[in-house]
Amino acid sequence: MKKITVLGAGMVGSAMAIDLSKDYYVTLCDISENRLKQISAGTGIKPLVKDLSDKQQVREAAAEADIVVGAVPGFMGFETLKTVIESRRNVVDISFFNEDPFQLDELAKKNAVTAVVDCGVAPGLSNLILGYHNERMKIDSFECYVGGLPTEKKWPYEYKAPFSPVDVIEEYTRPARIKENGRVIIRPALSEPEMIDTEAGVLEAFNTDGLRSLLTTMKIPDMKEKTLRYPGHIELMRVLRETGFFNKEEIEIAGKMISPVDLTSKLLFPLWKPEEGEEEFTVLKLKIIGEEKKIEYSLFDKYDKSTRTSSMARTTGYTCTAVVNLVLNGDYTRKGISPPEFIGREGECYNKVLAYLAERKIKIIK
Amino acid sequence: MKKITVLGAGMVGSAMAIDLSKDYYVTLCDISENRLKQISAGTGIKPLVKDLSDKQQVREAAAEADIVVGAVPGFMGFETLKTVIESRRNVVDISFFNEDPFQLDELAKKNAVTAVVDCGVAPGLSNLILGYHNERMKIDSFECYVGGLPTEKKWPYEYKAPFSPVDVIEEYTRPARIKENGRVIIRPALSEPEMIDTEAGVLEAFNTDGLRSLLTTMKIPDMKEKTLRYPGHIELMRVLRETGFFNKEEIEIAGKMISPVDLTSKLLFPLWKPEEGEEEFTVLKLKIIGEEKKIEYSLFDKYDKSTRTSSMARTTGYTCTAVVNLVLNGDYTRKGISPPEFIGREGECYNKVLAYLAERKIKIIK
Repeated sequence: MKKITVLGAGMVGSAMAIDLSKDYYVTLCDISENRLKQISAGTGIKPLVKDLSDKQQVREAAAEADIVVGAVPGFMGFETLKTVIESRRNVVDISFFNEDPFQLDELAKKNAVTAVVDCGVAPGLSNLILGYHNERMKIDSFECYVGGLPTEKKWPYEYKAPFSPVDVIEEYTRPARIKENGRVIIRPALSEPEMIDTEAGVLEAFNTDGLRSLLTTMKIPDMKEKTLRYPGHIELMRVLRETGFFNKEEIEIAGKMISPVDLTSKLLFPLWKPEEGEEEFTVLKLKIIGEEKKIEYSLFDKYDKSTRTSSMARTTGYTCTAVVNLVLNGDYTRKGISPPEFIGREGECYNKVLAYLAERKIKIIK
Repeated sequence: MKKITVLGAGMVGSAMAIDLSKDYYVTLCDISENRLKQISAGTGIKPLVKDLSDKQQVREAAAEADIVVGAVPGFMGFETLKTVIESRRNVVDISFFNEDPFQLDELAKKNAVTAVVDCGVAPGLSNLILGYHNERMKIDSFECYVGGLPTEKKWPYEYKAPFSPVDVIEEYTRPARIKENGRVIIRPALSEPEMIDTEAGVLEAFNTDGLRSLLTTMKIPDMKEKTLRYPGHIELMRVLRETGFFNKEEIEIAGKMISPVDLTSKLLFPLWKPEEGEEEFTVLKLKIIGEEKKIEYSLFDKYDKSTRTSSMARTTGYTCTAVVNLVLNGDYTRKGISPPEFIGREGECYNKVLAYLAERKIKIIK
């Protein structure tokens, strides 16, 4: 039986380890022994305490694996991926780090490693679908709308984040790179709000910096990525941002130097923390236009009460584990860095990922 | 010529000194020499640098005066007033301190001092008008709506404050005492929002703790005081309050203990600071119901471009200087602490205040 090492026992990492443990021998690594105990109990998953911010410990964790799954926090993602590639292990990653993954392309090719990055739902599944169609038609325009939201709207933010508010605020401040008429345009985050009809009612979409690898891998003249929230949320975020609550630069408060966003994040944390077992959903909508056709995809996934697995863990994690299977089974063998649009080019791989998700009741309506 | 000492050269204190200097010998005291120079230039006002947080310096400032006008920041107001009363000077005060002024009633009576407190527009003129009618009819209900706002609405707060945001935030957090069916009821600040038609369009009113002395001096069963803002402002304030941005208790941010409201105040300060010569207006609406009559008063005053005097300085300051004249001229002689409703009882005083305001083009429509 093949061996998989999952790095990071967060919400998505844990869901992936459980999913993969049905068919493989899985080792789950994390710095928290408690978290590992809690997840691995009764699953056959081997818990392994490792500090993944330490290169040597990443190397040890990767050593025995046939393939590695990267699910560490974004700020650690690039270094962790590099270490895994240096260790000559194939890897599928969902840490969504900010660095350009193609910096590691040469290293991965030299080491004959298949390294898939950004392999979640969006980025991830969205790239895969676009990659599939881009190989088969001339695309003029691509739009991606994505959001994960709590089912219950609670005043005032009507939002929950299964991670630190700092990472969400980063989405709300980083300028968004979009493509218009073949050129990359920079728009402020939270800009160009529009209302979108979804399975969860009307949601509000705004520019975020989510195109990532597509900006360089695709020759499509018009592309944009927008994040979805309940209407009104982004107005509050714009108010907080314009007031300075998202500023990183330290200011003096009663003789002490403080970064406002640190305080803001601390205050928002309890308000944005999902309650135990809180229901949520994930919406993904894609519009692909070209050759006088308009192809639309729609995904709507809900919290799984029976397994207590969030839709965000399901849609992100199972896209990743689907690709882990492709690589392990030799269906996808390209060496070097692959964003998911590269995988989508190959029709058989594409169909297998969608079938894998369908087995797990993640329905993508075309 | 009689001598008046004005304590505090803030926006309202300065406007009062200028107004009074036409008929009296005025000394204006402040800690800021620059501010004093700027205001007194070409006016005949005598500038006097004094640190009014120091009892001895308040005593020195009051020593020569026939009457003292108190216009220091609220947190210094009570102590300053006490020192003036100890110095056996008549005094009219607009510092709007939080302490109960009647704690000084005995001292003022013992020293044969007339001390008028809360002598602005509301509290102030509103109390005067209510006091007048309360002496002449049985009143069942009193409602007071008041607000000072910038003429130009600027996203997101549509509000400007000629003083530190901390003092405004205090209004937004201190529970509001109102009177219902003869009993004092405590409602949260920012509660019971309602839309009100005014000369400046529709404004939003919410409970504030502005009844102050009326809670004890009046036997009216139903009384409430509400503050006016442009619609939407208070929703933002509620969001900030509920998130914890108005909290005074220190929390730890990156190893440093910080009071969130200090940061919030610092960030709001530049956004809420009126621009040089920025136009603004003051709205006051009173509803007095009793003996099957409904009496309404309405005041709408705008920034005076010719003298560059804000409506807030005009309405607050000229009510105060009107009363200064009453006391100086022996029209109002009651010893002890007088809130303005005591002055309103006396028809001649009441008429003189309204005439004084009318001379300064502050129109109160009944």
